[in-house]
Amino acid sequence: MLWGGRFRKNLDKAALRFSTSFPIDIRLLPEDIEGSLAHAEMLSKIGLLSQKEFDDIAGGLKKIEKEWNGSAWPKDLDSYEDVHSAIEARLYELIGDAAGKLHTGRSRNDQIATCERLWTKKACLQIKSLQVSLQKTLLSSAERHTETLMPGYTHLQRAQPISLAFHFLAYMEMLERDKNRFVHVIEASDSNPLGSAALAGSTLPLDRELTRQILRFEKSTANAMDTVSDRDYFLDFLHACGVGMMHLSRLAEEMILWSTSEWNFIQLSDEYSTGSSLMPQKKNPDMAELIRGKVGRVYGHYMALSTTMKGLPLSYNRDLQEDKIPVFDSFDTYCDCLEIMTGMIATMRVNDRRFESELAGSFSLATDLADALVMKGVAFREAHRIVGQIVQFAEEKGQKFSDLSLSDLKTIYSGFAESDLELLKIEQALKRKKTTGSPNPDLVKQQIERWRKTLTAK
Amino acid sequence: MLWGGRFRKNLDKAALRFSTSFPIDIRLLPEDIEGSLAHAEMLSKIGLLSQKEFDDIAGGLKKIEKEWNGSAWPKDLDSYEDVHSAIEARLYELIGDAAGKLHTGRSRNDQIATCERLWTKKACLQIKSLQVSLQKTLLSSAERHTETLMPGYTHLQRAQPISLAFHFLAYMEMLERDKNRFVHVIEASDSNPLGSAALAGSTLPLDRELTRQILRFEKSTANAMDTVSDRDYFLDFLHACGVGMMHLSRLAEEMILWSTSEWNFIQLSDEYSTGSSLMPQKKNPDMAELIRGKVGRVYGHYMALSTTMKGLPLSYNRDLQEDKIPVFDSFDTYCDCLEIMTGMIATMRVNDRRFESELAGSFSLATDLADALVMKGVAFREAHRIVGQIVQFAEEKGQKFSDLSLSDLKTIYSGFAESDLELLKIEQALKRKKTTGSPNPDLVKQQIERWRKTLTAK
Amino acid sequence: MLWGGRFRKNLDKAALRFSTSFPIDIRLLPEDIEGSLAHAEMLSKIGLLSQKEFDDIAGGLKKIEKEWNGSAWPKDLDSYEDVHSAIEARLYELIGDAAGKLHTGRSRNDQIATCERLWTKKACLQIKSLQVSLQKTLLSSAERHTETLMPGYTHLQRAQPISLAFHFLAYMEMLERDKNRFVHVIEASDSNPLGSAALAGSTLPLDRELTRQILRFEKSTANAMDTVSDRDYFLDFLHACGVGMMHLSRLAEEMILWSTSEWNFIQLSDEYSTGSSLMPQKKNPDMAELIRGKVGRVYGHYMALSTTMKGLPLSYNRDLQEDKIPVFDSFDTYCDCLEIMTGMIATMRVNDRRFESELAGSFSLATDLADALVMKGVAFREAHRIVGQIVQFAEEKGQKFSDLSLSDLKTIYSGFAESDLELLKIEQALKRKKTTGSPNPDLVKQQIERWRKTLTAK
Amino acid sequence: MLWGGRFRKNLDKAALRFSTSFPIDIRLLPEDIEGSLAHAEMLSKIGLLSQKEFDDIAGGLKKIEKEWNGSAWPKDLDSYEDVHSAIEARLYELIGDAAGKLHTGRSRNDQIATCERLWTKKACLQIKSLQVSLQKTLLSSAERHTETLMPGYTHLQRAQPISLAFHFLAYMEMLERDKNRFVHVIEASDSNPLGSAALAGSTLPLDRELTRQILRFEKSTANAMDTVSDRDYFLDFLHACGVGMMHLSRLAEEMILWSTSEWNFIQLSDEYSTGSSLMPQKKNPDMAELIRGKVGRVYGHYMALSTTMKGLPLSYNRDLQEDKIPVFDSFDTYCDCLEIMTGMIATMRVNDRRFESELAGSFSLATDLADALVMKGVAFREAHRIVGQIVQFAEEKGQKFSDLSLSDLKTIYSGFAESDLELLKIEQALKRKKTTGSPNPDLVKQQIERWRKTLTAK
Repeated sequence: MLWGGRFRKNLDKAALRFSTSFPIDIRLLPEDIEGSLAHAEMLSKIGLLSQKEFDDIAGGLKKIEKEWNGSAWPKDLDSYEDVHSAIEARLYELIGDAAGKLHTGRSRNDQIATCERLWTKKACLQIKSLQVSLQKTLLSSAERHTETLMPGYTHLQRAQPISLAFHFLAYMEMLERDKNRFVHVIEASDSNPLGSAALAGSTLPLDRELTRQILRFEKSTANAMDTVSDRDYFLDFLHACGVGMMHLSRLAEEMILWSTSEWNFIQLSDEYSTGSSLMPQKKNPDMAELIRGKVGRVYGHYMALSTTMKGLPLSYNRDLQEDKIPVFDSFDTYCDCLEIMTGMIATMRVNDRRFESELAGSFSLATDLADALVMKGVAFREAHRIVGQIVQFAEEKGQKFSDLSLSDLKTIYSGFAESDLELLKIEQALKRKKTTGSPNPDLVKQQIERWRKTLTAK
Repeated sequence: MLWGGRFRKNLDKAALRFSTSFPIDIRLLPEDIEGSLAHAEMLSKIGLLSQKEFDDIAGGLKKIEKEWNGSAWPKDLDSYEDVHSAIEARLYELIGDAAGKLHTGRSRNDQIATCERLWTKKACLQIKSLQVSLQKTLLSSAERHTETLMPGYTHLQRAQPISLAFHFLAYMEMLERDKNRFVHVIEASDSNPLGSAALAGSTLPLDRELTRQILRFEKSTANAMDTVSDRDYFLDFLHACGVGMMHLSRLAEEMILWSTSEWNFIQLSDEYSTGSSLMPQKKNPDMAELIRGKVGRVYGHYMALSTTMKGLPLSYNRDLQEDKIPVFDSFDTYCDCLEIMTGMIATMRVNDRRFESELAGSFSLATDLADALVMKGVAFREAHRIVGQIVQFAEEKGQKFSDLSLSDLKTIYSGFAESDLELLKIEQALKRKKTTGSPNPDLVKQQIERWRKTLTAK
Repeated sequence: MLWGGRFRKNLDKAALRFSTSFPIDIRLLPEDIEGSLAHAEMLSKIGLLSQKEFDDIAGGLKKIEKEWNGSAWPKDLDSYEDVHSAIEARLYELIGDAAGKLHTGRSRNDQIATCERLWTKKACLQIKSLQVSLQKTLLSSAERHTETLMPGYTHLQRAQPISLAFHFLAYMEMLERDKNRFVHVIEASDSNPLGSAALAGSTLPLDRELTRQILRFEKSTANAMDTVSDRDYFLDFLHACGVGMMHLSRLAEEMILWSTSEWNFIQLSDEYSTGSSLMPQKKNPDMAELIRGKVGRVYGHYMALSTTMKGLPLSYNRDLQEDKIPVFDSFDTYCDCLEIMTGMIATMRVNDRRFESELAGSFSLATDLADALVMKGVAFREAHRIVGQIVQFAEEKGQKFSDLSLSDLKTIYSGFAESDLELLKIEQALKRKKTTGSPNPDLVKQQIERWRKTLTAK
Repeated sequence: MLWGGRFRKNLDKAALRFSTSFPIDIRLLPEDIEGSLAHAEMLSKIGLLSQKEFDDIAGGLKKIEKEWNGSAWPKDLDSYEDVHSAIEARLYELIGDAAGKLHTGRSRNDQIATCERLWTKKACLQIKSLQVSLQKTLLSSAERHTETLMPGYTHLQRAQPISLAFHFLAYMEMLERDKNRFVHVIEASDSNPLGSAALAGSTLPLDRELTRQILRFEKSTANAMDTVSDRDYFLDFLHACGVGMMHLSRLAEEMILWSTSEWNFIQLSDEYSTGSSLMPQKKNPDMAELIRGKVGRVYGHYMALSTTMKGLPLSYNRDLQEDKIPVFDSFDTYCDCLEIMTGMIATMRVNDRRFESELAGSFSLATDLADALVMKGVAFREAHRIVGQIVQFAEEKGQKFSDLSLSDLKTIYSGFAESDLELLKIEQALKRKKTTGSPNPDLVKQQIERWRKTLTAK
């Protein structure tokens, strides 16, 4: 036992296993070594390590990282309770007593906070790059489908005609907000905890500004006790993953719906579908279902850490060890889902003309008709009522909108003119849209152009 | 690809990795083999397997189980997408084409439900046995502490004197309810899904009653589509784990409080404590903190599966694959926490006399004093007011309850008599309790006796 | 302030408003009065109330209940911090000092637990009756639709033909499990807390067995401290509501899907749909969407109370006041959703023949074909492969299953016979099902019969 | 029914009650009127309203707001399904047919999004001002307690001496992060949805830039379908409330602990405590308990809306109506808790000297002693071991740190000098701290100064 000098008995075996975090936090090895190198450099600058000691420590740490990256990692290290103890033990083996000096003026508490913050910053960048990939794929698909007509839904009822490009642009917006949320997480984690020690700083003349510079943190944390008690950056991270997954779950739901026999709007590639053991004709959108299902996992992780943090008195409590599983698994899950969704969108086949004839005959232009009445000076509520009657009239006669004649229309409202019949035709529907943010193909193309530039710039 | 005969392309590599559940569901290997043996026996009884085929299949399956339990498991099987495919592939290697007949009249959907239900029943029994262990440990400690006085708290304020035995008996009740909840889970999972096939049963003359008997299920499920869509038993299981963990978190919180310098009521054994890397004098209740922290994990798992199930249309959807991680990890976590809590209670040292003198002088007998006034015929609200004034009187004079004289009491209420001074002494406090369920030592001993019998009987 | 005799200052105004629970717990008025009547009767039996006092108290309490049920409730009572204080204050006004004796040997802690347990038992019965109503409605619909063909889905892909009756029977099973979960909640709440007092029982000779009998509890609680700390029955209740809501969310999802233009399988009644302010042709399944959306609310309530309970030391803590909002709102929400779903199912119109022709030509009989090969002695895996090739063959030729000729079949597998062509026809598909729990119309009718008897019996 | 012109039957009565949101969204009345005024002004600018019509509408809306703020609100309006319908109906009563023109080019979907975003911006500012109040109160208390010694805890074990000021500065940091999170929510909600209409913009020449300017939004939303489907700003809001509540729950926990007989560090004011009905001596920290308990409620709300959003296909679905209860109740709860916590901190009495003597004799300076050895050149791990032995030595002799003599020290490590005995004294402990962010009183005062300036500046 590394630090239990005063204890008479060793930890119970089950308790040791129970409290071990090595299999989880081993992925912090690069960050632990990065943080230790910075700490050692600072200790040597303020005279608490000799040049020789620093060289030994730095050399040892780098060797350990190489061992880990290669295949030379001594297997017995896996039995240590956490990655930090394992590295420390290995450093002793490699360089002897000098290793004992590395922990000068440092506690597990600020050491772990440093690892976590370094990791978080990297993780956010990795996620952002996957978010951009998905955006690029959506954008390419949008580019090909500015004229692919489909019903826009509210309440999953066909409401008004839109284009597939317009639909995908909605997800571009969501992903942009998702990216932005991770920018905030980076800011939230961009403070140097080193020098906070266990909870109250140190009587040693540690230079926190120096480690901050070496580790490229924006600033140093301002209160040592807060520093070792704080996991806000992880909660922010989990929130960002959760909302991101929620958006993917919505897109996944649509992939599933559009792949049904009933919708028949897209066909997923064989590379992203599976067969059935008992029903040979099936082609199942398993990947989309898994993405939709995994949102639960990430929500659960948010709830897990939130619960764990509830009501904890300051400062560090061992409960906080439970922070890593939810965060690491949310990262893995969200990254995987982004990657799979990207592949699924990139390889799916769109049934371009699926909705054209159906929309042509549908009532989905009712709003446009009401708007046209408004332009004639009819009050909107009245226009709405008139169009409602036209729909009812057509339904009763078993007719579609495009079947109606001018005299049919005039039965309901005498002010209709020949030119209004154009409004019942689908071809020009999107082009009539005037507002920014609408599916007007020209506006959609402008937006695609804008997105293209933004994404390339980054 | 085992079942994708009609497909042109293989699953994308990332998608394969993404959708694989092998590392998780490999722990269902024994249940999968148990279920397959039952299914094969039934197939042979109804003539769809020859005796030879059945013997081959049964022999093969048993060999696979041995390989798994020993060290002969062929490593390449780990790359299959799930445990079922791996077993099936291995069976082919071992016995050839007869393996192909095992899947007759069976789908992954009813196969998985069978594994899960068999597993759940076993898991509940395992948990119950750990719950009983903790109960036995609490009971032993209670037995030693029927006269160990301590303050009973409400609002974490000292309210009335109780005994440690009485305190632990409260947890006996909670654990009993926790056990009962798992009894309900067993009932909920005790139905045979085999023969439900993919979602609609089979045109083959499968004998579901026979597999039910072999697998010792209480009954068979009544609707095939419900059978393959249902994960209620898992939600019930997660709820039972969650409430169980919540109770442990309360006990853990008390272990932590009682171990503080401020409370100083118990001392945890070195085997269940750890030291600090920077503060050599520390003895930290890490195990209790971890138990308290891990309640978040189990809550999160409940939320995860609940979210996943939300709004899924019937019947089986791949989202359901996400059911196993929360369930298995909740099981592991709850089992570990039960075991560790048991060890911690069994080895802790109680500072028996810690509260005796403090309670002797405290106001914690105020309620008894009010009750005595009631027995004299004073209305309770009035008695309450009188005692409130006595407390205020004593506080102002800086005195304790036991310092008060009869004339002091009479200043407030003239009806007090000499004998009432006894009520201000702590020694007889518990013995004066009259109601069942109170900390009266005689009643507590009776309860301990009753528990002892109940726990031994099982 | 009723009980703060020793305090110098009143509660801060904002703090008073903050801590008030009156608007929430006023709905416990009947239970509070029921509990108080039982307590008073017991006090009079053991001689702590005179007959006169008891009569006054009982008369006063009954008058208060009448005032509440009528319109005579004095408005100033609404400013009390909780329903218990309001009743107590009103009782003083009505009968004077005798009111002060009602609180003899009772604490808010056991009083509240009594109210909650009495309420829970009633609430469960009310829910059960609404669950039965929905079951009856589903059953009636099932009765009319034993021959209404529809695709059974897995992964939302058409898998095998089933009937709408069979589909609804799946929900009968879910609802039956849901009812059972509330039976467990009744058991969990069926213990008498009275006599537990604040946390440690009483020195007064309270007769807990008597109040148990009067209040018709199954038994009395066994440990006073557990009694006032326990909210397990509420967590069990919330779990039962959550799973129940989850099932409704699945059915709601299907109502929404089936109402789309794409599915066009059902039409919801105008009484359960709404129009759009901008799109006159819309008919939106708002009620189904609200039910689906409200599952979040109930999940949230479970999480709320679970979080609140985490890590609370014994015994009563004021945190527990937060138990009522989640429970009451979950009750209201689940009851409403059951009722609305019942009305929606009862009034919807089914497009009976919607899927007949589509299924006739589809590949959804592929499994049956494979099974038939098995009956000819082909190994299942081989049969599966053969049928997969037939599907591919038909797709390439742009043909449906029912278009295939015997020679087509023989191209793939020579063992096919003339009679096998029958297997490609939809008409007999359901009747060929042999297993219990399958959609075979005869078996389905038997099940309907069984349900009919069960539901009538209750 | 306002918009159901085409429907034959009215909504079922239970369904109407079920789907009504009036009691909840009535608090959006000011935002609805603000949004309508902007929309009307824009309509008049683009010629779709005459000056007269606009004057009538604007006059009518302002009158309605006055009626609402005063007591002239017509009660029958409360029966409308939502605030928007109620306002619209009232406007008809007041100004007749011109009211019908207000809905021109607007849908409930963009109308509601506008209300919600306007509300969110205001709510965030209100919260920030309460956060600042709490910060100011903490700062004032910190100012008075820069020299109030207390143990700093890790694992709730005394670790190192700190000051109460330092402890409160930790919460200053948390609150600052909490404020920042709401700044992000403001950014997230600061886009104009008007002109997005139902889901696809409009064929009318609506000027979205103009309404943006009038409503002082930073920009306009870029995709109409995303606009009406998006509730990210509400999820961000709930996350911010949740983390904020979590921090308050930690502080509340400490208030509760510090108020115990065991800690006896603070005494809460009577204005923020309550008595007990059965135990007259009790003084309960109810407000702190309620704050701690209410964190569950806010977590639950986050989970509720997250669940509701899961897997919803685009665009608007009625499920989204469930967004308001969690958001409004989280706002109310968090505001209340901030306010109550502020009052509780402002009025509590600190037992300044409570820990002085205990700390003087404790081992809490062990770290400093180890650091001093490091400054002598001893490797830290070795120093740690030495100090561990000293602790063990003292414990065995039943001595405190301050009792140890130089020769005692030398028994363990010969390098100790006379001057090192100073290190065992508590008086100078804080002043020896050297690192930024430590409890060194001079550094703490600097930080208080900095905070004072920051808070005044805002």
